[in-house]
Amino acid sequence: MENISFRDVTIKDGFWRDRQKINAEKTIYNVRDRFAETGRFDAFRFEWKEGMENRPHIFWDSDIAKWIESVAFIIEKEPRPDLEKKVDEVVDLMEKNQWEDGYFNSYFSVCEPENRFTNRDWHELYCAGHLTEAAVAYYYATGKDKMLKIMCKYLDLIDRIFRVEDSAAFHTPGHEEIELALVKLYRCTGEKKWLNLAKHFIDRRGMQEEVPEDFWCSSRYYQSHLPCREQLTAEGHSVRACYLYAGMADIAFEYDDEALKKACFSLFDDIYNKKMYLTGGIGQTAVGEAFTVPYDLPNSRAYTETCAAIALVYFASRMQKMRVDARFGDVIERAIFNGVLSGVSLDGGSFFYKNPLEFLHAERGRNVGVPRQQEPFPEAVRQRVFSCSCCPPNITRFIASIGDYICSEDENTVYIHQYIASTVKTAKGEIEIETGYPYDGKVKIVTGADFRGKLALRIPGFSKDSFEIKPDAGAVVKDGYAYIDVAGAAEFEINLDISPKAVYANPLVNEDAGRVAVTMGPLVYCAESVDNGENLRALKIGKITDFERKFNAGLGTTDIIIKGRRLRQETFEGGLYAYEREYEPCEIRLIPFYACINRGECDMTVWLVSD
Amino acid sequence: MENISFRDVTIKDGFWRDRQKINAEKTIYNVRDRFAETGRFDAFRFEWKEGMENRPHIFWDSDIAKWIESVAFIIEKEPRPDLEKKVDEVVDLMEKNQWEDGYFNSYFSVCEPENRFTNRDWHELYCAGHLTEAAVAYYYATGKDKMLKIMCKYLDLIDRIFRVEDSAAFHTPGHEEIELALVKLYRCTGEKKWLNLAKHFIDRRGMQEEVPEDFWCSSRYYQSHLPCREQLTAEGHSVRACYLYAGMADIAFEYDDEALKKACFSLFDDIYNKKMYLTGGIGQTAVGEAFTVPYDLPNSRAYTETCAAIALVYFASRMQKMRVDARFGDVIERAIFNGVLSGVSLDGGSFFYKNPLEFLHAERGRNVGVPRQQEPFPEAVRQRVFSCSCCPPNITRFIASIGDYICSEDENTVYIHQYIASTVKTAKGEIEIETGYPYDGKVKIVTGADFRGKLALRIPGFSKDSFEIKPDAGAVVKDGYAYIDVAGAAEFEINLDISPKAVYANPLVNEDAGRVAVTMGPLVYCAESVDNGENLRALKIGKITDFERKFNAGLGTTDIIIKGRRLRQETFEGGLYAYEREYEPCEIRLIPFYACINRGECDMTVWLVSD
Repeated sequence: MENISFRDVTIKDGFWRDRQKINAEKTIYNVRDRFAETGRFDAFRFEWKEGMENRPHIFWDSDIAKWIESVAFIIEKEPRPDLEKKVDEVVDLMEKNQWEDGYFNSYFSVCEPENRFTNRDWHELYCAGHLTEAAVAYYYATGKDKMLKIMCKYLDLIDRIFRVEDSAAFHTPGHEEIELALVKLYRCTGEKKWLNLAKHFIDRRGMQEEVPEDFWCSSRYYQSHLPCREQLTAEGHSVRACYLYAGMADIAFEYDDEALKKACFSLFDDIYNKKMYLTGGIGQTAVGEAFTVPYDLPNSRAYTETCAAIALVYFASRMQKMRVDARFGDVIERAIFNGVLSGVSLDGGSFFYKNPLEFLHAERGRNVGVPRQQEPFPEAVRQRVFSCSCCPPNITRFIASIGDYICSEDENTVYIHQYIASTVKTAKGEIEIETGYPYDGKVKIVTGADFRGKLALRIPGFSKDSFEIKPDAGAVVKDGYAYIDVAGAAEFEINLDISPKAVYANPLVNEDAGRVAVTMGPLVYCAESVDNGENLRALKIGKITDFERKFNAGLGTTDIIIKGRRLRQETFEGGLYAYEREYEPCEIRLIPFYACINRGECDMTVWLVSD
Repeated sequence: MENISFRDVTIKDGFWRDRQKINAEKTIYNVRDRFAETGRFDAFRFEWKEGMENRPHIFWDSDIAKWIESVAFIIEKEPRPDLEKKVDEVVDLMEKNQWEDGYFNSYFSVCEPENRFTNRDWHELYCAGHLTEAAVAYYYATGKDKMLKIMCKYLDLIDRIFRVEDSAAFHTPGHEEIELALVKLYRCTGEKKWLNLAKHFIDRRGMQEEVPEDFWCSSRYYQSHLPCREQLTAEGHSVRACYLYAGMADIAFEYDDEALKKACFSLFDDIYNKKMYLTGGIGQTAVGEAFTVPYDLPNSRAYTETCAAIALVYFASRMQKMRVDARFGDVIERAIFNGVLSGVSLDGGSFFYKNPLEFLHAERGRNVGVPRQQEPFPEAVRQRVFSCSCCPPNITRFIASIGDYICSEDENTVYIHQYIASTVKTAKGEIEIETGYPYDGKVKIVTGADFRGKLALRIPGFSKDSFEIKPDAGAVVKDGYAYIDVAGAAEFEINLDISPKAVYANPLVNEDAGRVAVTMGPLVYCAESVDNGENLRALKIGKITDFERKFNAGLGTTDIIIKGRRLRQETFEGGLYAYEREYEPCEIRLIPFYACINRGECDMTVWLVSD
């Protein structure tokens, strides 16, 4: 099975078209301006000297690379001469400043050239990976191959140093990413050597590697505690982990490598069953930005970096090529509508790095007495810029390429994984998807006269016991997909049950025990203090039967108003404990999680006290 | 009002006599042996040299001091020649090794004599304080004044250096304790200079002090962020804080210092209303072993050091001398029956340093991937010894002197604060307290023929709406005390309502929202996995109406068996989230918190999911 690229997809008016417009008209420029202000573009001039401001940083190449890739994805669909010109300038600087032997890294070249390929943790191969992805995307979008050639030359050097000679001070990337980038390059150029190099990094990983002695040090943090094929549980830094797992899935797929496949399925199961937030967020702790132990899913302290949710989508989308299983599409859907999308404000101008499932006043400012020992705790306001700015350009490239996740196909069947209003070109003919999803559960699928084959429609987990396909074409449901034979022009309607639903967590999840989350279709909802008053923990809801949907013009969302109860604060007389408690009836307004914290700093929670 | 000393109290058979027997027959020897093994006694020889094992430590003097004080408290009541001999040996070594000018500190003398009085954080004055308390106690118990003289000589030096000359590298103790010790010394010797020195340390504190630059550094950590009279909220290291607050209360009482009293009442309210666990534990975070922000009371991550609960009792018992208010007695009772007593195992042989309100498997081992960055997390097994061993000898001295908290008296009235079976000598005549409390709510108070005055009986918060005094002597209840006029031999019975009660936390306490704790009289109960199966978060209880009391021969406790429900794990099919949940009826066994983790490592929780 092959995923159908966003290049063969046209997103039509609807939820995602709106997000893409803001992305292409606002966010991409916002990110560019912040990067310009902080010297990230200037770094490519290689003119920085000790004493000047804006010292280049080890991960700046990757920031610019993701911005270039975003531009490439945007101009695939609509010309943007101003953005394209900026990219060309950067590429010219790359050409000018590339070393004779192919090396390119704006930090090491300028700040410590004598130390290239000596520090595993310093993101050198990660930067090379992102620049490679950008080069591939820019070549696809414009046909310009200058950046591609620069990167191939650099990668030839990397191939020699790391694979042929094994002469660097380390053997595999400290921050994985280059693996999946090399697979993309192979698919673009057809040159097997890039696939070989990706496989080399995966084969070599966890084989008696030195772990750098630094602040975050540990072999699990780097996914180097075991050879990749023996890694069965998700460990360490969550972004690094899922970029690696995506690369492993690529190699497993390309080489039909059974041991690697087995590891990938096990890693996915571990995340899906034990380490994933309801929002599709991953990375349970800020300490090491890492996975922790099963069922440890704290809400306020959740790390759930935007990049980690994106990395999980990359991993899951590669997994769904290897096995038909609606869980992959469910995870992608959960992430894109919640833990990914929450990473950017509704106006496209500010960002979350961490996307925790609650912000509570009473938890903020802990350890105020010991400033240097403060527990890492998420900011309850969105930021225009971060010094570690991986998330903003990651979300711009992700939204621009959301079409990547809609369909895949094999010899006989086109699989529709995500219900995004679009036109999709497949080898079996064109498909139209018309829908107001996720706020409307009705999806119309239209095939053209030339279409021949099976359609497989993913039945999302929330609707698996209650959906309808019209006309009833004798659809057979298997592995979470409804299969329909189609010949020629046809029109189907699938009605998914997007009524609000209570969700409960496994009681092994300490913080969520006795609590309930409300979802509507793929959307996770949350309560904010701006709607519901200061103390969100005083709210209690029972069965989700008495509710009302209400359009929120300010946020552009459909909110859920539920009848609930509020614990009377007076019982506690300003103190901590009481032998009695009293509730009074109240209405609780819930908004989609992706729209949280768009009205200034306030408290927010996904998991409410339940009856 | 003056508190009546345990020296005027004879504890009779009952709950606390049992604890004292184990304390005097087992724990005191266990602590002695561990201290001997670790070189703490040998340190007093001043013979350690670089390269030898058991390097003296900055706080070892205080460990030995608390052990000596424990011995003194025990031999007040029954001779223990072996223990007394050991103390005499230590005192002889002190005499031999005291510096010409009076200085005594086994760490600085041996390891870095050139640095005495230079490092505020290194517990020098704290050690002096504990040695002073020990000297006073040993003098009271035995009439031997050698140690007392040694300490007076040392304190004369401290008085000169810190008060007269102000010539040390710092001005007030980094770890407070000496303040309350000096007040004890003043009361023992009648010498006003010791009171003056205590007052000096309190007056000087927070006046443009340098905060040492070390790992835990911050002025709040040291309660040095403000002058003492302006400190209105409890901040920083919780043990240091409450030792200071106890000293402040002493000085406020002795000097009738209104500004200091106001600060003390405000500090107490802040703890009582916003920062105290149901168990009387304080110190919400291991990071800085500190108070944090109001209503931040995490259960698994609670620091709640045994010493902190003890320090809170010291503070509260000084407060109840300044105002009649049953809240002080309530806090003392909550702490002594729960967060203090949990610090030692039922057999007296092992200890908790931290006394969190839950141990959950699913939370342990977090951040395993990043070993050097592990979040501090309590051990779920009791330890025979700690390298930082402040708690074991603190609990031995505390249990031996539990009689300190029973009564106080002013001109007209004897106040009975704690219902501990005992005979109490008061200025108004002897009082007998007969009771099976806390497992029996009936308390008999008997006065002798010579008794003249009022009795004030504390009505504990849990019983304030339901108690009975027989014969009905027209008791007037005010400020939580029932006042009875007594002349001559009399016998009263007070019946307190110790039926099991649900307790709810203010919903501002995030983790406890939607949860319930069960108490019986002053005892907080908890569920352990050894009784209730592995997943304690799956348990749910409603109203506490259907229960049974059951004696537990193994633990010597009276347990509560409640009808509850258990969330069916199967619903989750091994995964994280489900749209449905099912409960099945079950019995839940609750044991007193003080008896937790006495049957090997297991999960435990105080706060259960509530209907």
